[in-house]
Formats: sequence, structure tokens, C-alpha cells
Amino acid sequence: MTDTDKAPAPSRRALIGWGGAGLALGAAAAGGAVALTREGDDLQPTAAEAGAAVDFHGTHQAGIATPVQDRLHFAAFDVTTEDRAEFVQMLKDWTAAARRMTAGKAVGEGAYGGLAEAPPDDTGEALGLKPSRLTLTLGFGPSLFEKFDLAGQRPEALVDLPQFAGDNLDKNRSGGDLCVQACADDPQVAVHAIRNLARIGFGKVVIKWSQLGFGKTSSTTPDAQTPRNLMGFKDGTRNIAGTETDRLQKFVWAEGPGWMKGGSYLVARRIRMHIETWDRTSLQEQEDVFGRDKGEGAPVGKAKERDKPFLPAMKPDAHVRLAHPDSNGGATILRRGYSFTDGTDGLGRLDAGLFFLAYMKDVREGFIRIQRHLATDALNEYIQHVGSAVFAVPPGVRDKDDWWGRTLFSKEA
Amino acid sequence: MTDTDKAPAPSRRALIGWGGAGLALGAAAAGGAVALTREGDDLQPTAAEAGAAVDFHGTHQAGIATPVQDRLHFAAFDVTTEDRAEFVQMLKDWTAAARRMTAGKAVGEGAYGGLAEAPPDDTGEALGLKPSRLTLTLGFGPSLFEKFDLAGQRPEALVDLPQFAGDNLDKNRSGGDLCVQACADDPQVAVHAIRNLARIGFGKVVIKWSQLGFGKTSSTTPDAQTPRNLMGFKDGTRNIAGTETDRLQKFVWAEGPGWMKGGSYLVARRIRMHIETWDRTSLQEQEDVFGRDKGEGAPVGKAKERDKPFLPAMKPDAHVRLAHPDSNGGATILRRGYSFTDGTDGLGRLDAGLFFLAYMKDVREGFIRIQRHLATDALNEYIQHVGSAVFAVPPGVRDKDDWWGRTLFSKEA
Repeated sequence: MTDTDKAPAPSRRALIGWGGAGLALGAAAAGGAVALTREGDDLQPTAAEAGAAVDFHGTHQAGIATPVQDRLHFAAFDVTTEDRAEFVQMLKDWTAAARRMTAGKAVGEGAYGGLAEAPPDDTGEALGLKPSRLTLTLGFGPSLFEKFDLAGQRPEALVDLPQFAGDNLDKNRSGGDLCVQACADDPQVAVHAIRNLARIGFGKVVIKWSQLGFGKTSSTTPDAQTPRNLMGFKDGTRNIAGTETDRLQKFVWAEGPGWMKGGSYLVARRIRMHIETWDRTSLQEQEDVFGRDKGEGAPVGKAKERDKPFLPAMKPDAHVRLAHPDSNGGATILRRGYSFTDGTDGLGRLDAGLFFLAYMKDVREGFIRIQRHLATDALNEYIQHVGSAVFAVPPGVRDKDDWWGRTLFSKEA
Repeated sequence: MTDTDKAPAPSRRALIGWGGAGLALGAAAAGGAVALTREGDDLQPTAAEAGAAVDFHGTHQAGIATPVQDRLHFAAFDVTTEDRAEFVQMLKDWTAAARRMTAGKAVGEGAYGGLAEAPPDDTGEALGLKPSRLTLTLGFGPSLFEKFDLAGQRPEALVDLPQFAGDNLDKNRSGGDLCVQACADDPQVAVHAIRNLARIGFGKVVIKWSQLGFGKTSSTTPDAQTPRNLMGFKDGTRNIAGTETDRLQKFVWAEGPGWMKGGSYLVARRIRMHIETWDRTSLQEQEDVFGRDKGEGAPVGKAKERDKPFLPAMKPDAHVRLAHPDSNGGATILRRGYSFTDGTDGLGRLDAGLFFLAYMKDVREGFIRIQRHLATDALNEYIQHVGSAVFAVPPGVRDKDDWWGRTLFSKEA
């Protein structure tokens, strides 16, 4: 086992390497060993759960089947170096930093060794904060495979997304050679992680775009209520739970090519909601559009959010009806999206909506099949897809000697 | 007493008026009576504290001396109606909605009375969430006093801010006839509140700009550690605590004009940090710039963050030295700022920094005096003020018959 397994949710303040800091900040307020899986219907985690650490190592990367954390900072990067060895070294440096940050530690062993002349190894704003269930999940975009002689390694399942009906994509919010999804219960912890990876990557990669998400819109926890999106509705109530190994195996974990076994494919879409129009729409129209009642989230004619929907009872263009696996040859994805609000659009309207994130075994059989079928979705009147990206998410980092992307980049893999 | 005092932190789900919703969602998970004032040095609140309600009513508006919540949604509005009666009615409607939302209730009594044909009285995304210490604080900008025959009522203390050295203000992120500061421990609760006020104000006001803040950078709680800003430093460690009635009276609460007695003045500044430059600066330079050590936050030569600084030990352009009351004729303000990260700036740099919020008795003797003195601040190399606004924040809403702005707008006031 590795150093991330040592301590039960230690506070960062106990681990910081700055001279005197550990001492001055006093004894560690250790969070104690806590359960990571929430039961019951309370949508807000307890402070103890929020403080815990999620193991960085495993067969699969954390942040996919991991119970969804409250906050997101997602960043897409473009590679600027042409030196493969330099890029691989950066992936190793990122891995070491991610291993420490997810355990609630500052970047760098003993930080900067007392050298006041050097920039700090860690930017410091998460000092004193708990691990907060931070997960960091790395993905490779299609454009990466045009670099470093990787063309032959690009997975067939990693297709470029077609233009869908209604797409109005901003290229400044789309694509990217790499992505890192940072999820945590404390946004400062997620922002700190992305910022430090960007700092470590200086001269090798540059942030292309990034997105903060303030509220989770999906649940991967069995029996937990589905959180509401900014339309006030629960959506995707039959999401794949992190404990459903059969469904994860069938719909989420990639089986190939060899370097991707145990990985997954990620589709990210920035979906702007026309909030003000929606808010002036009648309750009946809103419920017809989704095919659910607003209060409970139950499908038309049913009592509870997870009751099996009777699709013929819904309008033909209802969102639930069109998105349901039964309407899409069984297509099923694991959703992990977040609500966003990025201020105002200059016309007095909130720039707000859903930052859709979904993991799947094959982009063609998952998102593309479903999204094509949503061309006639009644919801399209109230939303617009304005950003888009797709990534191959490699398998997990096995242990302390392993590193992100080894199966793709290492000759011994 | 009013209906906001009835229940100890009830869940919104118990109070929603939608037909069947209360029933289907099951029994209320009441938070129980909890202390609102945190002691000790833990920077993260317990779940119970985070779920509590803050009383909307009082001599002063909540959200000023109230212990700082974790998250912010701040919105500036411009008035579009020229009808004073219509505007006053909106203020009354806003008050009623704010009273309910801060108590963890949906907007509207019994919501929409079963009328499926009407838009819902509440947008619904906070249904099931706790009150989360939501506070809503209303302010009036200088430009409001050019409307509704209010010119004679503009307080002398509400001056337009001068151009400061280094200002690079974006007019699309500055000014506003009105503002609402929404603070809560759950960002979805803060966003929900602003969005519903904007919805209620449709046709009367329009959002001019808004800002999300994800991490508090100040503390108004005695003995709590000062949270870190995105430079990794603690700043303003001797902030006015919400319990220090003498300092609040001396530096924060306005004494006049009559309609402002018990109110305060708010300065909002969007301060962009040049994060990437800062992160490549040596620890020594960073500590010299602030006049503190980074680990503990202690002033130069001292051991603890709240130790009285010895200003001559610092470099002449150190931030602490220049901003200290002893360097500014005693000028003191109550800071309530938040860190922000709004994605990327198109050049690969994080659009991140500090959304500075400060309350004071008189803008001339508070912010203006201090900011003028900061013209030579070493920190200016790493920051830029890009947005600016100032507001008169009227006194609190006394009881359930009172409303926001009554002392300014009511002839009986």
C-alpha cells in the first residue's frame, strides 16, 4: 500500500512541509475513518464524509464510479511541447502531485526544502482544508493522437462527435488534447488541484478552457435522491450506481484496445439553459417536456422518481421517453454532470445550465446514439449545447510506482 | 415573531406547496436547533451548522455581521421601470420571497395553488435543500438616486469611487442601481435565491452583472482562522468580528441620513490575480509582498496570524503595512470577500482572483482612504482591479410587516 492509505482523512495542515507551519498551525484535526458511501435521502453530506480522502489508486481511475462529490473544476489542456520524454515526465509529475493532493497533502515532499529563493511547490490556498473526497481523473482527447506518433493507438471508440441538431458550439469551450476532471466537496480543493497541475505543466501544456460546476445533478449512490438541475427537475434517475459492478462492466469500463482496458470514454457538453424562458413556462408544460412531475420527479402516472416509467403515457417528444434506454436499443451511460452559473451574458440573462459529463464503454453506442435520438426532444426549445469534447480516460494508476498514461506511453506496458 | 422563527432549520422539502410533493418526499429531516457561531479553528462547518437558518429580520440586514458563509452569488441590477409604485411593489415582493427563502421555504405560500397552467412560484432547484444559512442583503447604487425623485435622499457617504492607480475597470462588471448579496453554505441555495429574485423582478429590473464566489477569504467569527485567498495567503486577519458591537458601531453601521440609520455602505471590487506570475515567484518575494509568512500568516517577525504587526519590520511597500489602520488614520472596514474562478481568459490563464466585498460606515473614510494608500502596494504587480461598484445598504427589515427599502420609499418612514 502507499502513503495515500496511511491516514484517515488527515487535515492538510498536519502534512504541510513549510518550515514552522505544521507546528504553528497546531495539532491535526483528523477527520477519522468515515464511510464514503452515503445512504438515505439526505442530499447534503455530513462534514465527516466531506472531509474524507478517496484512494487515488485502483484498477479504474477514481472520479467515475466514485460517489459524486458536490463541486467540480474541469480543465481541458492543449499540449505545447513536442518532446515526448518531456511530456511523459510531466505525466509522472502530475501523478505524484495528484497522489498527494487527493490524500489531502500539499504538492511536494517537504515542500521547498527551506529554499525561500524558490517558488513554493504548492500554491497554498488549500492548506488547512481536508481532502474533501478530491478525485482527479485524466483523459486524452482525439487531437492528442495526432502527436507523439500515437496515431496507431487511437481507440476506435474515441470518435469525433458529429454535429447534432441544435448544436451551437463555441470552439473556445470545445476540444482539448487532455482533460482533468477535479471533483471535491470543497470547491477550493478542486480549484487548487487544477491550478497546481497547470502550474506543474507550465511550458508543456496550457489550459484551453475550464469550467466550474457548483452543484451535482446526478447521483451514483444507490438509494440517494437524484439532485435537481437548474430547471428544478430530477433527470436521469436511473443512473448507474458506483456499486453496480455488472452495469459498470457492461456500459462503462472499456475492454480495449489493450492500453484502455479498465478505462472509459468521457463526453463533456456545456449545455446552456434558457433559464428566463423556462421560468415563465407553465408547470404543465414543464412536466410535459420532461415526462415527470416536478415535485417528486416521478415519471408520468407513477409515484416515485425511480419507478419504472411507462413511456407510452408520455408525450412523444418528452425527454424521459426519448432518452430512455428502451428507446435507444438499451444505450446506457453513467452521468456525472454539474450545474453551472457563469455570471451574465451581457443581455441580462444568466449564463447558466448543465455541464454534462458522462462516462461510457463506447462513444458510438452511448452518447451518440442517445443524442441523435434527442433531435426531436421537447427540451431543445429551452436548452442549447454550446461546448463539446470527448476523451479516452485510461485505466487507473495501480500503485505508487505507476503513473497516469503509462499503458499508452510506456514501451513496457 | 414571524413564520421564519417557527421551525429549527426545516428542510425545504417539508415546506413546499406543490400538490403531493410534501407527501411524496416523506417526513421532514429537520436540522434541529444549532449554534450559528462557530468556535475553534476548523475551517469547514459541520453539516448541522451548514443547514441552519439565519433570521431575516433585525435592526441591521443579515449578511454583514453574520458569520461568513462558504459561498456567494452576487448580482447587480439596473431598474427598467419608471413607475415608482411598481418598483416599490417589487421591493415588497422581493422581501416576501427573501423572508421565505432564507427560512428554507420555497417562494410563494402554497406555491401555485394547484394551477398547472401557471408558471411555478418557485423554480424548484433548491427543493430538498436546507436553509444553508442563506442571507440576502440589498443595496442601492448611486445611479438609483437619479430615478424616482430620490436625488435629495442620496447619502453624502455614498460617493462615486475615484479612479485609483492601476484600475482597469470593465463597465460590464461595474455599477448597478441595485445589488443583492446572497451568501449560503450551499451554492445552489445562493444561486436559487438570486435567480428567483431576478424572475420576480422581470419587467422591472434586469441583471447588469453577477459574480459567483466559491471560497470565503475572510472571517467575521472570533477566534476562527482566516481563510486563505488564491495567493495562498491569509489577509485581513484582524477583521471585525460579528460580535464586536463596539467596532461595528464605530466602523460599520451608518448613523445617517435618517433612512440609512442602522444600514451600511458596501464596496464591491472584482480583483483579478495574475495567478501564473504569482506561482512562479519565490516564497521570499511572496512573503515580502504581503509582510507575512505564508505557512501561518503571521506578520513579519511574529508567530501567529493575529499577533499585532510591527510595521517598521516590513518592507515599505508591504501590503499589510500599507493597509493597516495605523497607516491610514485608523480606517477600518469589515471585509466579506470571496475567491472566484471564472474559467480561462482565452490566453490559457485562469480568470481568477478575489471578489472583494467590504462594509463600512462611510466610503470616504473607509475604502477610499485605504485604497489611495495602496497605490504603492507591492501587491499591485500581481493583481488588477477589473470591476467596481458601491451601494448604500439600508437598515434591516424589522418584522413581517416591514419591507426592504421602506425607510427610503415610504412616506410614513
